[in-house]
Amino acid sequence: MVIKNDNFLRALKRQAVDRTPVWLMRQAGRYLPEYRQTRSQAGDFLTLCKSPALAREVTLQPLKRFDLDAAILFSDILTIPDAMGLGLYFSAGEGPKFKKTVRSASDLATLPELNIERDLSYVFEAVDHIKTGLENRVPLIGFSGSPWTLAAYMVEGRGSRDFATLKQWLYTDPNGLEKLLSLLSDAVSEYLLLQIKAGVNAVQIFDTWGGLLSSHLYPQFSLAPMQHVVSKIKETHPDIPVILFTKGGGQWLPAMAQSGADALGVDWMTDLKPAFQQVGAKVALQGNLDPSVLLGSSERLQAEVQRILSAAEGFNGHVFNLGHGITPQANPERVAELVGLVHQG
Amino acid sequence: MVIKNDNFLRALKRQAVDRTPVWLMRQAGRYLPEYRQTRSQAGDFLTLCKSPALAREVTLQPLKRFDLDAAILFSDILTIPDAMGLGLYFSAGEGPKFKKTVRSASDLATLPELNIERDLSYVFEAVDHIKTGLENRVPLIGFSGSPWTLAAYMVEGRGSRDFATLKQWLYTDPNGLEKLLSLLSDAVSEYLLLQIKAGVNAVQIFDTWGGLLSSHLYPQFSLAPMQHVVSKIKETHPDIPVILFTKGGGQWLPAMAQSGADALGVDWMTDLKPAFQQVGAKVALQGNLDPSVLLGSSERLQAEVQRILSAAEGFNGHVFNLGHGITPQANPERVAELVGLVHQG
Repeated sequence: MVIKNDNFLRALKRQAVDRTPVWLMRQAGRYLPEYRQTRSQAGDFLTLCKSPALAREVTLQPLKRFDLDAAILFSDILTIPDAMGLGLYFSAGEGPKFKKTVRSASDLATLPELNIERDLSYVFEAVDHIKTGLENRVPLIGFSGSPWTLAAYMVEGRGSRDFATLKQWLYTDPNGLEKLLSLLSDAVSEYLLLQIKAGVNAVQIFDTWGGLLSSHLYPQFSLAPMQHVVSKIKETHPDIPVILFTKGGGQWLPAMAQSGADALGVDWMTDLKPAFQQVGAKVALQGNLDPSVLLGSSERLQAEVQRILSAAEGFNGHVFNLGHGITPQANPERVAELVGLVHQG
Repeated sequence: MVIKNDNFLRALKRQAVDRTPVWLMRQAGRYLPEYRQTRSQAGDFLTLCKSPALAREVTLQPLKRFDLDAAILFSDILTIPDAMGLGLYFSAGEGPKFKKTVRSASDLATLPELNIERDLSYVFEAVDHIKTGLENRVPLIGFSGSPWTLAAYMVEGRGSRDFATLKQWLYTDPNGLEKLLSLLSDAVSEYLLLQIKAGVNAVQIFDTWGGLLSSHLYPQFSLAPMQHVVSKIKETHPDIPVILFTKGGGQWLPAMAQSGADALGVDWMTDLKPAFQQVGAKVALQGNLDPSVLLGSSERLQAEVQRILSAAEGFNGHVFNLGHGITPQANPERVAELVGLVHQG
């Protein structure tokens, strides 16, 4: 059960590596023609997520093309609220939506009791399938949305520019909202623990919308629930690295570094070198190329990769990644170049 | 021509004030029933902007209701590209869009020569009308979108989550994009100088999308063009305060403080006290209440206002504002409370 290329796991623990490990958020995605083909066979995105065989297929696709140092479970960040009966669906080009919303303490009472092992069994089966397919070549990353980010979609029913309904709840009945967050913290903890049981080697918590909080409320409403998840995982699995990624959270890295997580994701608006100087003695950092660089020239890509590698120089614990998910317009040729450039160093 | 309540201008120059001045971004807007009435009479938003009499009416509406310390010209941040013939329009609930786009150096060549004084005369007439209506009770703020933000909409043709087309241009042909930015820097400079000539007492540059740039590219593509505008204004009008506001730019305040601007806008994700500690000796700061607090309870509003006033305590040069524009759902009662709370101190 030894993983052949474990540079990713070692970097997360700030141990010595043979080369800077690299993976890309949303690396199994629409920018790959083979992904688009599998998806069109499946019919829609959720069917793809819910079929362990297809999830395995698309998870492995980018690893066949590129010399990536980690695989990431193909799934969605919103599987938990979907399992709670909110009815996750996707309308073309509009991102995730829910048929039902949760907007008050009384709505909370109507949520069914979750049995994560049963209700999200398709995820754990997918992990098992993928692990078999991976043959321990590289580690497999499991993930979930953060409690705050799950709450954001559950309240709003969809993505939003300002999440006004969510914020209205926060600024009117913060205790009610904290009840939802507490419920989600437990669910996310159990969900990630079951992914670990199924075989993932590291987990990432995607906090897509934590960056919309006021600086003094981020610790309470987004970081504390994530911290609860981290400590639940660490209680029984101290060796499984945990990565926290709050998009737009560059100003809060010092607080995040106190969470017990092993590594922090860094978006491209944040300067990586000062980030390493601030928190590099405590956590590994993952990032932080602007995903749009993959739309540009080869020369520009070289310069931007070099800049990031230089910023990380002299620090242990750098995992190269984008500062957010890869976009559908990304050029697969550039992705191949990127992986080569990172490994070349 | 002495302005009776000039606390806003004095705060921008970090001089002593009688009370903390307050105004709200988008204070003339859809949250006010009287605004919605005038707008429905006008038919649409652009007609409202282009009619000096109606622009005066809606500019003054919030000042009749609330004891605000400044008025802001009612207009749009995208008047310049509209005057360039790109065809600005608004579809319900979707934000601004352009009929034509500019996506390459060759597209640039097709843009008509602008005569800002003629092509945007409706703006300067509106300033004149508003000044008459204001009777020098409080200062009038003029504004424009930043060159980068104008470019973002001109290239993309609309708002976007990642502005992929704009970024593709940047990462493929940065020199071409810089030509567009240079053209826009000159246009914004002239536009603001003509607003000043028409009577505005301070100007704000709205850099709505600068926060999407990589930290190392923000100085080149967003800040430098704004700096050009600031120096053009200061050449002939050193006494007119200039405010720069980059949404999502909290990490870059120290660089922005070197721009020659008098004040910086601060969004609600940024901690105001450390911001004052970093740059308060050089610039005034404007902000930074989460606009969504106006959707919440009165108790919460009190606590949040108090927190911001405390953070600014001991520093000269605080203008109270939201961290972004007021939302249509805001409760006008809370706005009245907010203004009272700020003045009470």
